[in-house]
Amino acid sequence: MSRPYKSYFRPEIDAMQGYTPGEQPKMQQLIKLNTNENPYPPSENVLQALKDLDMKRLRLYPDPLADDLCDLIARHWGISRNMVIAANGSDDLLTMVFRAFTSDKLAVSFLEPTYSLYKILAQMQHAEIRKIKLTGDNFEMPSDILEQAKGTNLLIITRPNAPTGNSFAIAKMREICEKFDGIVLIDEAYADFAEDNCIDFVKEYPNVIVSRTFSKSYSLAGMRLGYAVGNEELINGLYKLKDSYNVDLVAQTAAKAAFADQENLVKNCKKIKETRAMLYQALRDMNFTIVPSETNFLFASPPDGDGERYFKALRDEAIIVRYFPGEITGRYVRITIGLPEEMEKLLKVTKNLI
Amino acid sequence: MSRPYKSYFRPEIDAMQGYTPGEQPKMQQLIKLNTNENPYPPSENVLQALKDLDMKRLRLYPDPLADDLCDLIARHWGISRNMVIAANGSDDLLTMVFRAFTSDKLAVSFLEPTYSLYKILAQMQHAEIRKIKLTGDNFEMPSDILEQAKGTNLLIITRPNAPTGNSFAIAKMREICEKFDGIVLIDEAYADFAEDNCIDFVKEYPNVIVSRTFSKSYSLAGMRLGYAVGNEELINGLYKLKDSYNVDLVAQTAAKAAFADQENLVKNCKKIKETRAMLYQALRDMNFTIVPSETNFLFASPPDGDGERYFKALRDEAIIVRYFPGEITGRYVRITIGLPEEMEKLLKVTKNLI
Repeated sequence: MSRPYKSYFRPEIDAMQGYTPGEQPKMQQLIKLNTNENPYPPSENVLQALKDLDMKRLRLYPDPLADDLCDLIARHWGISRNMVIAANGSDDLLTMVFRAFTSDKLAVSFLEPTYSLYKILAQMQHAEIRKIKLTGDNFEMPSDILEQAKGTNLLIITRPNAPTGNSFAIAKMREICEKFDGIVLIDEAYADFAEDNCIDFVKEYPNVIVSRTFSKSYSLAGMRLGYAVGNEELINGLYKLKDSYNVDLVAQTAAKAAFADQENLVKNCKKIKETRAMLYQALRDMNFTIVPSETNFLFASPPDGDGERYFKALRDEAIIVRYFPGEITGRYVRITIGLPEEMEKLLKVTKNLI
Repeated sequence: MSRPYKSYFRPEIDAMQGYTPGEQPKMQQLIKLNTNENPYPPSENVLQALKDLDMKRLRLYPDPLADDLCDLIARHWGISRNMVIAANGSDDLLTMVFRAFTSDKLAVSFLEPTYSLYKILAQMQHAEIRKIKLTGDNFEMPSDILEQAKGTNLLIITRPNAPTGNSFAIAKMREICEKFDGIVLIDEAYADFAEDNCIDFVKEYPNVIVSRTFSKSYSLAGMRLGYAVGNEELINGLYKLKDSYNVDLVAQTAAKAAFADQENLVKNCKKIKETRAMLYQALRDMNFTIVPSETNFLFASPPDGDGERYFKALRDEAIIVRYFPGEITGRYVRITIGLPEEMEKLLKVTKNLI
């Protein structure tokens, strides 16, 4: 080196840690229940569309606006095409939202515990973080959430929430959107596994963004596809922050095919919810404490309340779940709902452990 | 609407315009020479790898670090794996670099004219912009560039430059990297069409990042793949700013296959350079002013110096090139090097126009 290394990074970046994604282990024969992937393959529609796609077209740039896909989404939800934006996974959307609405002058509120990426994105923006602690064994929303979030410019409600799995009353959501003086981002990554959702809110509230992903319910985690809906002016602003060609041609093709097959979506979500109910009951019978889930995972605490021990013991048996250290979260593990036979294996191993 | 729309955007975002990508027209039968796409399809290796890829695996997240791809790149350039980061197109990388090194306190310098996205990314960061005007008919680098860039934290040299197409002396580049007190980003999007490149600089200078893309020389614009190399500590810092799963499984697969086929890369670049030489000579014979190009495009000014008129006249004949309004750039159009027969058509139409 002709000169020594010296950091030119923004001080905020030097001070922060990056996000640690759930492990993608390369071991064979393991049961992978740690990143909320769908145990079923994508729709046959997707496989066919990718087979039919002339890959020679990859020499050309994709449609920068993913118009065909956004049209399809808009029609499905009964909104105008200008109310939809597509992204390279919903993480790409979250990045746009944080860059749009947070700064060293504009703070952000989000739940605790919740998706740990929000904190990292806030740090990148050097934005003040207001954490809103969920309360009780079922991680409920505090009744004074509006008071707690007051003065922040962005309030994120993850609904259903991760890693806890529970949802929040729709009437409360409506009240928040109505009264909060700022943007409400409703992160609906898991909404296809829930009893209801807030998509229709965007027709009423000009300060609401709802984000979705194809990673979980559509079995397309490997493809990176997310989208958001909201008021036209809001979405217009987000377009300014979008990478020009953020969604590639193959992803647009796969997402269109997946979205067009709503029947498959409903069928797979139904199977997952059935497996979830079975697992919930079986773990309860073994004296686990479990948060009622409207997602494709369970946040479950073993009888001795030692999440880490249970996590490690499962790992020794080649079953990978997710563990979040922390005073409260550390009592639990997050278990993705897999195939019924994977759940049977998990239960068998668990029975021997406790 | 139950309440009126009100902007909660950061004032910088409200004040700025988004980037306008080159048109992706849906007309049939046109000759598309406006976004520097490669006229040749991706390597047979890529087509085969995508055919062989089990698309059912899309239900799982991709490798967040794109390790196999980065290993391949590192080995090729003779650097360690920790000196490489992959991205969703090189635009994704540029975003990381701007978020890492610019802010309302940390300014950025770049050439003028150059890739127009830099300005937008600087605006998003609310960073002061120092424009370094290229000089003379051949858009040369001013000799006092270091003085001009002094005090800014990031200096971007696009080499070869776009939209002008010319390169800059390697000795001057070395001097800049040695003396500049800040990060030098060398954007080498077009370097595979050039006579030399600066990749080896990263072994010597701990403040240098070199970025590359698969969009042009590898014919993978539709797939979104870029990467950067640099000092390990620099790359580590960029990883903090990376979206967890920014490169999807299909893109990783395609890029690995493309990169492994260096023979095809060399062959296609050679063909494009031959076509470029032919087009350069033919337009010169028609009294065009043309910047000597080391890219897959020519920045060419028609005899009457009216770029817009020429651009529109070509468009009427279904030939799409790129026009950049402006006192100097407005005298030119940027013509992507296409197939030889497309160039013949362009020349025939041009002959009738002037």
